[in-house]
Amino acid sequence: MTVTNSEQRYEIVKGLIDQGEWDALSGVLEKLPTIEIVEILEKVDEDHMVTVFSLFSKKEKAQIFGELSHDLQYFIFNTLDKRSFSKVFEDMRSDERADFYQRLEVDEQSALLPYINKKVRSNVIELSGYEADSAGGIMTTDFATVRNWMTVREAVDKIKVDSPGKKMIYYAYVVDNEKVLLGFVTLKDLIIADLQDKIEDLIHVDFVAADVHEDRENVAKMIEKYNLLALPIINSDRKLVGIVRHDDAMDVIVAEQTEDMERLMGIQPNAEEDEDESYLDLPVVKHFKKRVIWLVSLAIMGMISGLILHHFEEALDKMVILALYMPMLADTGGNAGSQAATVVIRALSLGEVTTKDWAKITFKEVRISMLLSICLSAIAYIKVSLLSFDTVLPDGLSLAYVAFIICLALAIQVVTSSLIGAGLPLIVRKFGGDPAVVASPAITTIVDVTGLLIYFSLATTFLLH
Amino acid sequence: MTVTNSEQRYEIVKGLIDQGEWDALSGVLEKLPTIEIVEILEKVDEDHMVTVFSLFSKKEKAQIFGELSHDLQYFIFNTLDKRSFSKVFEDMRSDERADFYQRLEVDEQSALLPYINKKVRSNVIELSGYEADSAGGIMTTDFATVRNWMTVREAVDKIKVDSPGKKMIYYAYVVDNEKVLLGFVTLKDLIIADLQDKIEDLIHVDFVAADVHEDRENVAKMIEKYNLLALPIINSDRKLVGIVRHDDAMDVIVAEQTEDMERLMGIQPNAEEDEDESYLDLPVVKHFKKRVIWLVSLAIMGMISGLILHHFEEALDKMVILALYMPMLADTGGNAGSQAATVVIRALSLGEVTTKDWAKITFKEVRISMLLSICLSAIAYIKVSLLSFDTVLPDGLSLAYVAFIICLALAIQVVTSSLIGAGLPLIVRKFGGDPAVVASPAITTIVDVTGLLIYFSLATTFLLH
Repeated sequence: MTVTNSEQRYEIVKGLIDQGEWDALSGVLEKLPTIEIVEILEKVDEDHMVTVFSLFSKKEKAQIFGELSHDLQYFIFNTLDKRSFSKVFEDMRSDERADFYQRLEVDEQSALLPYINKKVRSNVIELSGYEADSAGGIMTTDFATVRNWMTVREAVDKIKVDSPGKKMIYYAYVVDNEKVLLGFVTLKDLIIADLQDKIEDLIHVDFVAADVHEDRENVAKMIEKYNLLALPIINSDRKLVGIVRHDDAMDVIVAEQTEDMERLMGIQPNAEEDEDESYLDLPVVKHFKKRVIWLVSLAIMGMISGLILHHFEEALDKMVILALYMPMLADTGGNAGSQAATVVIRALSLGEVTTKDWAKITFKEVRISMLLSICLSAIAYIKVSLLSFDTVLPDGLSLAYVAFIICLALAIQVVTSSLIGAGLPLIVRKFGGDPAVVASPAITTIVDVTGLLIYFSLATTFLLH
Repeated sequence: MTVTNSEQRYEIVKGLIDQGEWDALSGVLEKLPTIEIVEILEKVDEDHMVTVFSLFSKKEKAQIFGELSHDLQYFIFNTLDKRSFSKVFEDMRSDERADFYQRLEVDEQSALLPYINKKVRSNVIELSGYEADSAGGIMTTDFATVRNWMTVREAVDKIKVDSPGKKMIYYAYVVDNEKVLLGFVTLKDLIIADLQDKIEDLIHVDFVAADVHEDRENVAKMIEKYNLLALPIINSDRKLVGIVRHDDAMDVIVAEQTEDMERLMGIQPNAEEDEDESYLDLPVVKHFKKRVIWLVSLAIMGMISGLILHHFEEALDKMVILALYMPMLADTGGNAGSQAATVVIRALSLGEVTTKDWAKITFKEVRISMLLSICLSAIAYIKVSLLSFDTVLPDGLSLAYVAFIICLALAIQVVTSSLIGAGLPLIVRKFGGDPAVVASPAITTIVDVTGLLIYFSLATTFLLH
């Protein structure tokens, strides 16, 4: 019963390890879920880790190994002799096995392969051939198949023989001689049916499937949309080649979400081979690379603002008050634009809107941003009146008038920034890109330019003659 | 077979509706997954919608109704007479039923209740009593229970009787006389076992469960962590009161991700009753409210920058070149700070780091931001040299020297901004808050202040005497 927290259990296990109580430890560990054993192995030091790992059966080792971090996997791979390791490897889930295999160096791969039985070997090589971000890259070949002509009793017998090594068999897929997918039956169907019923009377023929080359994000979204436990993956001949499980779909959705959030902040997502690396595990230089690209691009794009400012240097020289409220204009525009971009990117990603809705979105953003303009201009007016009450202005200008022009610029800036923020993701999507690349820093930089143009156009027209 | 896209199928259905071919339509519809029927109903106009809805059986209606948008649900509720509606209502999934019921006005609730049978009525009232963001708020009471003393045959017979209305019975929960949860068996266990085996020999007693008042985000994370199809929910007496399904957990994770992303951009998440509203459905005023709070707070906080600028107005007056590079310093600081905040917030949310790792995180961010500083300062130096080559400087100052001081300020600004961005989420989490509230606009505003202080301190010390 694990309602109590896993930290208490870790303390108990740690105590047993420190005292070398391996038998007692073994008894405790066998009651824990795999993920908690993994967490324990990740925490203890390396020598103990190997000892603890050796306490498990071959099958448990395979399950645990599949969930370990890349570093620990690699450490165990190098510590065990190839023959012992091959036994663990053969018992792993096919998708996790292929993932691990793909991360090995070529010479390590060839050192391992001779120890692996032929069936597993060809499975690993087949699965390793798919792109990591495709259905093939995340599917498993551990599924149960039955035939249309079987009775429920025959189907159940086949599942009993096929399944012990297969964790997930809540669906059994019905295929023909050529492995072409005809439909599926659920375990619930089989349990509720009579033993002499025929599979062909139970089969669900209206099913959803995805092509093996489909993008993994779409696969995950299908599983989410249709509330599936697993999605069958077929090749171009409609033959069943694998399944993607609901928990792997959840991992994909979380990973894609991290990417979207990072892109939004101008951070490059992790490279493919580092996808599972955590914040602390990723080396400083890789963190640096993830961030520097946008920062440098923006610094270069920022030259445009620099040029505009340079052009208006004289104006600034005459009225220093203009310089004082430049940051307010830039910040507010950047914030409003980023907000609009965020909601539009998210709505696109959740399928709530498409590029065809551009007119509706524009109309909505105009109304929202006009409301925002009214509030923010009012605050800006108060701000200018309070902060600059003692400023010396050129002849003929009152502070109220200057404040009014600054607020007008701010109002226009909020509306244009919101439209730019909402519009850019739509344009990127229209041309087939990922809307999330329209990073908030990019929007900030762009609306800096428009903001300065609005500000100085109004200022030179109404304040400086 | 629905490998082909759902738009084609929609076109066919639309044609049949327009021609009033109800029989043919009925035949086509019954092959479609519920979610696609829902999508069709959402698209057709309201009169046809009710006609199409009426084509389905009571059970199908209940399933479809549960997935419809709030607006359509409400429309149907008002169109059908209370007696017909009550039949649909009774057949709904218990969690969806309670959600719908909770959104009705009190007088609508009391108008409906008399038509509902007693068992459903008390179930609805019980489920409606839980907080929407707790386990109780998202759980369903549709689960199968068996008893320890049963044989597999008896258990299967009980599931057959209990289950037809229950979509999800991949686990059967083992409870005692008092409904206290003892463990579970999977359908796979039951299928693989012999019919005369005892449940007590198959039961998994090491299971994970959550309290009915547990936060729904934690519940979803448990389901994700332990790769469960459903998580049993227990009350303080350890009695089984419901289960949360894997697909509902996925919905929670997606919703929480939207909230995190919005918070990061200074947008208030939707209010509870609007949680499922899409971008286009949410009224302009609610969009406005979501965004205005932060924008106004930031505008007010921005007064601090205003005050600092006001303080250094004389310095700006003497050297206008300082005003030219102020935006660069502010923007770069804001971007670097937001990046650091994003990765730390995400790492906290994924459980990759905890507040105890603050020293490691700080050390990492110092190194990353120093690398970034070197790059960005180099670019800034080039920028100043190119843009300000003809600027008239006060006596005794060379452009190279001024550029150096500006770059030094930028370098210090990038490091402090990164540390502020990484540190704030940790501090918020330490005090029990949600780190995602440390919105990027807030960081932008804060590092504006630190940036100006750094900039003008260096400038007054080294450039203006």
